[in-house]
Amino acid sequence: MSSNSFGKIFKVTIFGESHGPMIGMVIDGCPAGVEIDEDFIQHELDRRRPGQSKITTQRQEEDRGQIVSGVFQGKTTGTPMAGIILNKDQRSNDYSHIAESFRPSHADFTYQEKYGHRDYRGGGRSSARETAARVFAGAIAKMVLNNFNIKILAYVSSVGDLEMKEDYLKVTEINRKKVESSIVRCPNEIMSKQMIALIESVQKKGDTIGGIISCVISGTPAGLGSPVFDKLHADLGKAMLSINAVKGFQYGAGFKGTRARGSEQNDLFELKKGIVKTKTNFSGGIQGGISNGMDITFQVAFKPVATIMQDQPTLNINSEKMTIKGKGRHDPCVLPRAVPIVEAMAALTLVDHLLRNRSSKL
Amino acid sequence: MSSNSFGKIFKVTIFGESHGPMIGMVIDGCPAGVEIDEDFIQHELDRRRPGQSKITTQRQEEDRGQIVSGVFQGKTTGTPMAGIILNKDQRSNDYSHIAESFRPSHADFTYQEKYGHRDYRGGGRSSARETAARVFAGAIAKMVLNNFNIKILAYVSSVGDLEMKEDYLKVTEINRKKVESSIVRCPNEIMSKQMIALIESVQKKGDTIGGIISCVISGTPAGLGSPVFDKLHADLGKAMLSINAVKGFQYGAGFKGTRARGSEQNDLFELKKGIVKTKTNFSGGIQGGISNGMDITFQVAFKPVATIMQDQPTLNINSEKMTIKGKGRHDPCVLPRAVPIVEAMAALTLVDHLLRNRSSKL
Amino acid sequence: MSSNSFGKIFKVTIFGESHGPMIGMVIDGCPAGVEIDEDFIQHELDRRRPGQSKITTQRQEEDRGQIVSGVFQGKTTGTPMAGIILNKDQRSNDYSHIAESFRPSHADFTYQEKYGHRDYRGGGRSSARETAARVFAGAIAKMVLNNFNIKILAYVSSVGDLEMKEDYLKVTEINRKKVESSIVRCPNEIMSKQMIALIESVQKKGDTIGGIISCVISGTPAGLGSPVFDKLHADLGKAMLSINAVKGFQYGAGFKGTRARGSEQNDLFELKKGIVKTKTNFSGGIQGGISNGMDITFQVAFKPVATIMQDQPTLNINSEKMTIKGKGRHDPCVLPRAVPIVEAMAALTLVDHLLRNRSSKL
Amino acid sequence: MSSNSFGKIFKVTIFGESHGPMIGMVIDGCPAGVEIDEDFIQHELDRRRPGQSKITTQRQEEDRGQIVSGVFQGKTTGTPMAGIILNKDQRSNDYSHIAESFRPSHADFTYQEKYGHRDYRGGGRSSARETAARVFAGAIAKMVLNNFNIKILAYVSSVGDLEMKEDYLKVTEINRKKVESSIVRCPNEIMSKQMIALIESVQKKGDTIGGIISCVISGTPAGLGSPVFDKLHADLGKAMLSINAVKGFQYGAGFKGTRARGSEQNDLFELKKGIVKTKTNFSGGIQGGISNGMDITFQVAFKPVATIMQDQPTLNINSEKMTIKGKGRHDPCVLPRAVPIVEAMAALTLVDHLLRNRSSKL
Repeated sequence: MSSNSFGKIFKVTIFGESHGPMIGMVIDGCPAGVEIDEDFIQHELDRRRPGQSKITTQRQEEDRGQIVSGVFQGKTTGTPMAGIILNKDQRSNDYSHIAESFRPSHADFTYQEKYGHRDYRGGGRSSARETAARVFAGAIAKMVLNNFNIKILAYVSSVGDLEMKEDYLKVTEINRKKVESSIVRCPNEIMSKQMIALIESVQKKGDTIGGIISCVISGTPAGLGSPVFDKLHADLGKAMLSINAVKGFQYGAGFKGTRARGSEQNDLFELKKGIVKTKTNFSGGIQGGISNGMDITFQVAFKPVATIMQDQPTLNINSEKMTIKGKGRHDPCVLPRAVPIVEAMAALTLVDHLLRNRSSKL
Repeated sequence: MSSNSFGKIFKVTIFGESHGPMIGMVIDGCPAGVEIDEDFIQHELDRRRPGQSKITTQRQEEDRGQIVSGVFQGKTTGTPMAGIILNKDQRSNDYSHIAESFRPSHADFTYQEKYGHRDYRGGGRSSARETAARVFAGAIAKMVLNNFNIKILAYVSSVGDLEMKEDYLKVTEINRKKVESSIVRCPNEIMSKQMIALIESVQKKGDTIGGIISCVISGTPAGLGSPVFDKLHADLGKAMLSINAVKGFQYGAGFKGTRARGSEQNDLFELKKGIVKTKTNFSGGIQGGISNGMDITFQVAFKPVATIMQDQPTLNINSEKMTIKGKGRHDPCVLPRAVPIVEAMAALTLVDHLLRNRSSKL
Repeated sequence: MSSNSFGKIFKVTIFGESHGPMIGMVIDGCPAGVEIDEDFIQHELDRRRPGQSKITTQRQEEDRGQIVSGVFQGKTTGTPMAGIILNKDQRSNDYSHIAESFRPSHADFTYQEKYGHRDYRGGGRSSARETAARVFAGAIAKMVLNNFNIKILAYVSSVGDLEMKEDYLKVTEINRKKVESSIVRCPNEIMSKQMIALIESVQKKGDTIGGIISCVISGTPAGLGSPVFDKLHADLGKAMLSINAVKGFQYGAGFKGTRARGSEQNDLFELKKGIVKTKTNFSGGIQGGISNGMDITFQVAFKPVATIMQDQPTLNINSEKMTIKGKGRHDPCVLPRAVPIVEAMAALTLVDHLLRNRSSKL
Repeated sequence: MSSNSFGKIFKVTIFGESHGPMIGMVIDGCPAGVEIDEDFIQHELDRRRPGQSKITTQRQEEDRGQIVSGVFQGKTTGTPMAGIILNKDQRSNDYSHIAESFRPSHADFTYQEKYGHRDYRGGGRSSARETAARVFAGAIAKMVLNNFNIKILAYVSSVGDLEMKEDYLKVTEINRKKVESSIVRCPNEIMSKQMIALIESVQKKGDTIGGIISCVISGTPAGLGSPVFDKLHADLGKAMLSINAVKGFQYGAGFKGTRARGSEQNDLFELKKGIVKTKTNFSGGIQGGISNGMDITFQVAFKPVATIMQDQPTLNINSEKMTIKGKGRHDPCVLPRAVPIVEAMAALTLVDHLLRNRSSKL
């Protein structure tokens, strides 16, 4: 059953495999009249692009995004937008060794069980290459949000045991610059250096490492999100958990907040410049599943990449024992390249709820 | 826009307010031929029922579940099943004090902003009373899952700083009995006593406390869940995050696993009695978003309840300062009553993916 | 798979069987702030009610509609509206003869094949009794449309060979009165009498007869409906074809228009009081799937009711030959009672597209 | 809001404009393991291709279909299939005259009203060029249906007043050959010649003409289609009504059947070779919205094309009067090229319901 679409009004459908001719996306439900800046789309794709620094995979993809429908004279027409990215640096023979075997903690086994037939080249559809299509769509979503002054900032807040001590960042151009000036996308300069060193040391051992991305959304009006099943944080959580390698999601006070008392953690209302705000923001900007106008804050846990450059025992598709070792070009740590993906999924979620909210009142 | 439905094939729609005449649910998409045990439905509702022990709210609702369509001669007919639960012990005047004010960390403010008009009695639709309808639907889902030998067990693994040290439990009748013999639903007898004592002490101060529920699903065949956006854990995550007071979700190694190396955390395949299994289960039973046949394990973080029996400063709907104090009958800790809700949402997610998987192959 | 919901933003889910305790509906996605007039709901239900005249079934159902959630202080809250209608005059033993046999041109056989288990009492879910829930929901939809001055008028334009010669009616209070003052709901007084006589003569023979309902929608702004699959007339068509006994749908010039030339049938634009209108309306108010502001006009074909009071040969569930004869209380012609159903489905379609259109522009 | 997707399990999303770089489609939900015959896809596209005969538009498009994802080693993988068709023979300057004017009975005005911004080149998204993407997807759907021996045959049964007298055709290779050997796709040789002559005479006058396509589906098992809103004929009707220029849909006895008595039109059951069949088929193979195993038969009404090569008065976007005359390359009668489109939409509907039916029983 279909599972490659996201969103109810602003609906994104993505397609393509790691080693097919292209990956792409269709956005059905983008309002007409949104100005499209193709340079910005490319800027976003470049942030996710492989080969962007010494700590990412060396697969060379220029990831050139092309819009092929839905934009006329620089503005969206309200009809489906489609975009494609040609795959250029596939080396499918890198993957012949996995045609008949199951890489540990990868999707080879589960796809085989589910479908009985799989494109094993580079993981096929299960490859994180599909996230380029998400970033493409997310760039469009950000352009919609710009019209409403909603801004999103994600950054790497931990790698392994290295953890930023700062509370969540504010969304400012300075902070955005700090994030982007670090190849690991950690805005704390000292921590950034330590993280890079850690990733390099892990990489030398042919190993991989995980971490946490934090994200802040500012400018959201009160009222986004829906009661019961489509709470704003539930949709954000699903969006994040759908990203490859994600193992957890928390917002506001999150897991740590389970240790607190209600009296410590309730966010008291106050009036600031005529606007209802809360003194604290343990709620992470969402109450009862609906945005309250405060910053929305959440964190996303990424596991260490499953592909390691070490021998591992495994089974082949005939259930025979064998040894497997990572080949090809892989990331020792997905966190730096996952930052724009987290932002993209947040943008898609927000735009969808922004449009959904247009029907909440008569 | 609609947000009170869950599931794509096995679709549940729920309705009703805390102080209206009834709450209810409709399941559209339940296969025909499922035997329905009304006693089991009631058993599940009783586990969530208010007033069940000294550490829950004293609101007295017998929560009698009645099926009003979709079952004939004890079996489902394939047409919509509807179920209702009459509200009996509403005391709407308990809530007149919040008609014009916003309780801190509740949904009063956000509903007002979103809809401009709200049923303030007991929180109206935002009340956790709606979860009874989820448990009703979940009981049906469990009866479907029984036919496939899929079992779900949730339990309270932490309250405040009190945390069970055991790894996740196996789903056995013994463990289920341990969970249910504890009024806090923690299967570790010593820990259970400490948790009860802690909740009682918190309650005496008019305060509230949070905690974590762990859940295990056994018997799931490999192949459930879908690539990209509808990964099994993404849908489980959304299901859990949609429950009132939930602030976080993690599965398998979760947030802690972000600290590990790939070499430590990859789950190696092995053959056990002719079946492909993994030696470890850091993946939490899901790889690439699809179940691999191992136990599915996840954890859900609940914040302390917002309603406390203490004075709190707040604003009224005219933005004037005022003081508010919890009235009515509330839980000092939602965890014990949330256990069946977590199980219900897990069951709904699993059934939906079980049916969705029927179209994965020709 | 679920199939009992209609609409994407204003989503109606209906439930209940002919001989169960109740039928009901849930509307998820109704905007907040709509004033609800319970008398109007009852008025609409009464128009569909069995036993309303000598030419309808004599089953006596008062069809009392009760709203059980989603309305507070006389206005919708934006959360799900639910409504129920208790079944009172079921006589299930009237149907014991069909427990094991298949009535010709009914759904007994197809339900048996699809589900393997069916509620045979009065046709169970396949009974047109479910349309009362549609009329309930449609009454709410009409109250939403009132706020936008959109009006719907349906009427019986043919019964058997008796066919009104007038072009489509305008929506006026006078026409509405003419329709409602006829028990067959044909606004042409002379034709109405002939139709009634024809139905009575058919009924005397234990037979049944079909006909056509015409419908006009006025006040629709230009812009409703969507390109490609969700064209306004495609959704109207699906809505109408989903009504029991409907065999065809046409809008504007319809089937007759296939005989014309483009030059005869193009609707030329002209300016009337500053508003773009068309001189003719062969388009039926919809161009390219989107409303153009003219009256929307369509027709719906109803077959003669399958239940006749005559002996018919048939098969039982063991494929043995037998004779069956209609029992119970049935309509000789469904047209008069189907008029409010057509209007209800039109209203549901229009409201949904009205809300969907809110996202068409930035 | 999104409107360019069709189907619930087998979901097709299409994109592209008449004069953009390409049109395309994504199928999300196709089961894995379907063998794909690219020649067959091209064969289907060729049947819809412009310039195929003297009675169609002379726009030259080779309409080469390319699959860009979802197929590996000749079989579907279960992940999204995407296909593109490059636009080659656009001549956008043919359309500069409509940039600022509204063609009568076209979608120019309604798109302008809905979106405030439109791609006017060749009608942009409203052009019937999008139907090539439907035929592409429909070809895949037919390959799925082949595995279940379900066959679809459409043909032109009337053009203007010329109407085939035969009842609906049986689906045989002989009939298919008869249809395809006629450039107007009418299987009656004499009628075919008359229709061609009529179309040519209409074309000479710069005019256009409408007609009716009949369609038969054989091999459908009993049980497809769903109660209430998603009746099989309701979904078929929506599918057909979504095709450009369609004004009506009827199945089985259709509009004509409204004139009959129940006693004349009930389909009596009988046993044929151990299978329950009906003696007649006024029901058109569908009872209670669910297929009964008989041939499914329906008819689709197409209006005369709106673009005529004659002067017509109209308004420009500033509401000023002007004269417009068709330019470019247009069909005098869409019927011949619409036959594969009708079949494609029927195939998409059937596949979706075939897969949906997999969840009807435990």
